[in-house]
Amino acid sequence: MNVSMLAIGTELLMGTTVNTNSAILSEHLNALGLNVLYHATVGDNPTRIKESLNELLSKSDMVITTGGLGPTQDDLTRDMIADVSGNDLVLNEGVVDQIQCFFKSIHRTMNHNNQKQAYFPEGATILPNANGTAPGFITEFGNKTIVALPGPPHEMEPMFLESVQPYLMKKSNCVMASKYLTFYGIGESAAEAEIDDLVASQTNPTIATYAKPGQVTIRVTSKAKQELEAKAMIEPVVEQIKERLGFYLVSETHESLLEVVGQLLIEKKLRIAVAESCTGGLLASKLTDIPGISSVFERGYVTYSNEAKMDLLGVQEETLKTHGAVSEETAKEMVEGLKRNTGCDICVSITGIAGPNGGTADKPVGLVYIGLAYLGDVIVIKNNFHGNRGRVRHYTCLKALDMIRRKMLGL
Amino acid sequence: MNVSMLAIGTELLMGTTVNTNSAILSEHLNALGLNVLYHATVGDNPTRIKESLNELLSKSDMVITTGGLGPTQDDLTRDMIADVSGNDLVLNEGVVDQIQCFFKSIHRTMNHNNQKQAYFPEGATILPNANGTAPGFITEFGNKTIVALPGPPHEMEPMFLESVQPYLMKKSNCVMASKYLTFYGIGESAAEAEIDDLVASQTNPTIATYAKPGQVTIRVTSKAKQELEAKAMIEPVVEQIKERLGFYLVSETHESLLEVVGQLLIEKKLRIAVAESCTGGLLASKLTDIPGISSVFERGYVTYSNEAKMDLLGVQEETLKTHGAVSEETAKEMVEGLKRNTGCDICVSITGIAGPNGGTADKPVGLVYIGLAYLGDVIVIKNNFHGNRGRVRHYTCLKALDMIRRKMLGL
Repeated sequence: MNVSMLAIGTELLMGTTVNTNSAILSEHLNALGLNVLYHATVGDNPTRIKESLNELLSKSDMVITTGGLGPTQDDLTRDMIADVSGNDLVLNEGVVDQIQCFFKSIHRTMNHNNQKQAYFPEGATILPNANGTAPGFITEFGNKTIVALPGPPHEMEPMFLESVQPYLMKKSNCVMASKYLTFYGIGESAAEAEIDDLVASQTNPTIATYAKPGQVTIRVTSKAKQELEAKAMIEPVVEQIKERLGFYLVSETHESLLEVVGQLLIEKKLRIAVAESCTGGLLASKLTDIPGISSVFERGYVTYSNEAKMDLLGVQEETLKTHGAVSEETAKEMVEGLKRNTGCDICVSITGIAGPNGGTADKPVGLVYIGLAYLGDVIVIKNNFHGNRGRVRHYTCLKALDMIRRKMLGL
Repeated sequence: MNVSMLAIGTELLMGTTVNTNSAILSEHLNALGLNVLYHATVGDNPTRIKESLNELLSKSDMVITTGGLGPTQDDLTRDMIADVSGNDLVLNEGVVDQIQCFFKSIHRTMNHNNQKQAYFPEGATILPNANGTAPGFITEFGNKTIVALPGPPHEMEPMFLESVQPYLMKKSNCVMASKYLTFYGIGESAAEAEIDDLVASQTNPTIATYAKPGQVTIRVTSKAKQELEAKAMIEPVVEQIKERLGFYLVSETHESLLEVVGQLLIEKKLRIAVAESCTGGLLASKLTDIPGISSVFERGYVTYSNEAKMDLLGVQEETLKTHGAVSEETAKEMVEGLKRNTGCDICVSITGIAGPNGGTADKPVGLVYIGLAYLGDVIVIKNNFHGNRGRVRHYTCLKALDMIRRKMLGL
């Protein structure tokens, strides 16, 4: 089945809002084995919305719209879909009640305009909105389908997963199963090169690669009549991928490196402390982004100045003079001092040159030493990262997280 | 002039890459007074690229493409534009030399495929690429124009600003001037409500509002025959906006609250230290994201546990017992301890409940105390932020930065 996406809203054409909805939906639709042909964006203009709908319908079996379901005059999506599909809009009393309840729950009175959100093309399937007032809907006519979803991504994506995905699976008379493997330490193209024969030879399950800075995710998706069968089909492919890329595998359950490390720390009740120079609190702030981390995250130091490194971590003035603040010796004394001060199970130190200034021929921008003390053990790893200040800081944190992970798992 | 955007690349339809180019370009084009009608996205498929180009050209005076200018077989943009515009592709020897030089500079040999990037539709204006190998180009035919830009945003945007923007201004025979005002402490709709009469009555200069979480930017753009004239036209409008929203004004030069605070600290040589609980190093990591901050950023503490608050900042056990870790008293003792330990000119403490757990009826999620010691003065401000953990942490940092800014400026 061919699908196209129509994002509706003048704010998208003004550039004040980036359209993330089309990418989010495309990832889900590709995972369902559907073929996405076009993304289009149009403003809150009735003629152009209608023309775009008709054009996309002429080229695709299904069009999914996002946006334009609100209560204001600018919100034209439901009217234009009714027009294009040849259905009248009819009021749904049940939805009026739901919207009234929603307003009561936030201690406000329902505005007359909001009633507009309870009108749907005749015969449409209504999609409940767990996170806002605008329900979505599905309209089928002839051999075409239009799915209308709200614009805010935090309303749109749950509605897709809860209502549209099951509808699509039922329609195609099959069940999908997906597994997401997360990797750290290998680039996207290197990972793809390792498995390109698998990707080329597989049609069911399919294999797709996604990348974020420093992390690669491989999705394996199978299609079958029964859920158990679909799940079973994934496993041999996952095993083949793990045979080749197992060294870099972080999670088989779609979790990021940070999430894996946070959960391991909490599960294993390992208390952690960090001392950061060039990352300036970024590692601490990432770790403390994890809900529940307070049971194990003891403290962090941002020892930016030499004085802070001496005062707080007991780094020797002599060491700083002889080897410099960015050196294996300083990283080692930092992490040893942290261990002494806190007695934590895991201690991490970071010192480096994030740039753009401060680099020399001997110690270029991107040079970062990471120290790790775990139980009786102390290691320091030297890294040379590339890129701008933000990238060096981000990659440093990922590397530190992976060092922690490998130590905890004995890898 | 009406403009449409065509993003080209199968990765966009797979959802592996979010199309940010269309929004970036739309913001610039709207600032130039141009009217953006459509965004479209298509995969690396020759028929569909050609069809999309023809459709958008039938509805707009100009189409700007992004992507598909690389050296591989999938890169079809230049061929399809040549086809649609009725021009042959011709090799440009000068560009061959440039690409060869680029490869030399990164110590690699030019691949034969890269020669493809030196072909352009006959008569096209070539746009140099300062950040990659693929030049862009502008093709005019009849009363239509196609501008082809590379896909990577860090190549695309500089090329637009350096080559396309001047071309558009010359074409419209006028000069544009823009001023961006940044505000903190007022929401987007409240800011718009304050100036809606100005927005409605102005056509030159135009006024547009943009929002990021916690910050609002207002752009004022004028159009004139001469640069001085254009600049002069902006000022009275800027003054009117400042009269109404001056209290919230952070920058008149498009800088964020963080950038303004960083520059003020560096200029005024005010040494700073921070002690964070619920933000867990986020404020320190934001401050240390500013290049050159090391001259004033002395140190940070992430005192997540009560022990850390007592050990490092001298918070009294009695205070924690009586008032709790999240209290005005604890915030005050934290900042006073920090001041005692570091002697820094500016000290900041943060303690609060970021959620999702840990909230009570008395102390709900989002309750955050921020302490600030500046010279002899100590203040603590109680805040109630809304939203999830990430939002509470982000808004807390912005509020702390604004407190620092106001103190430094005596506001």
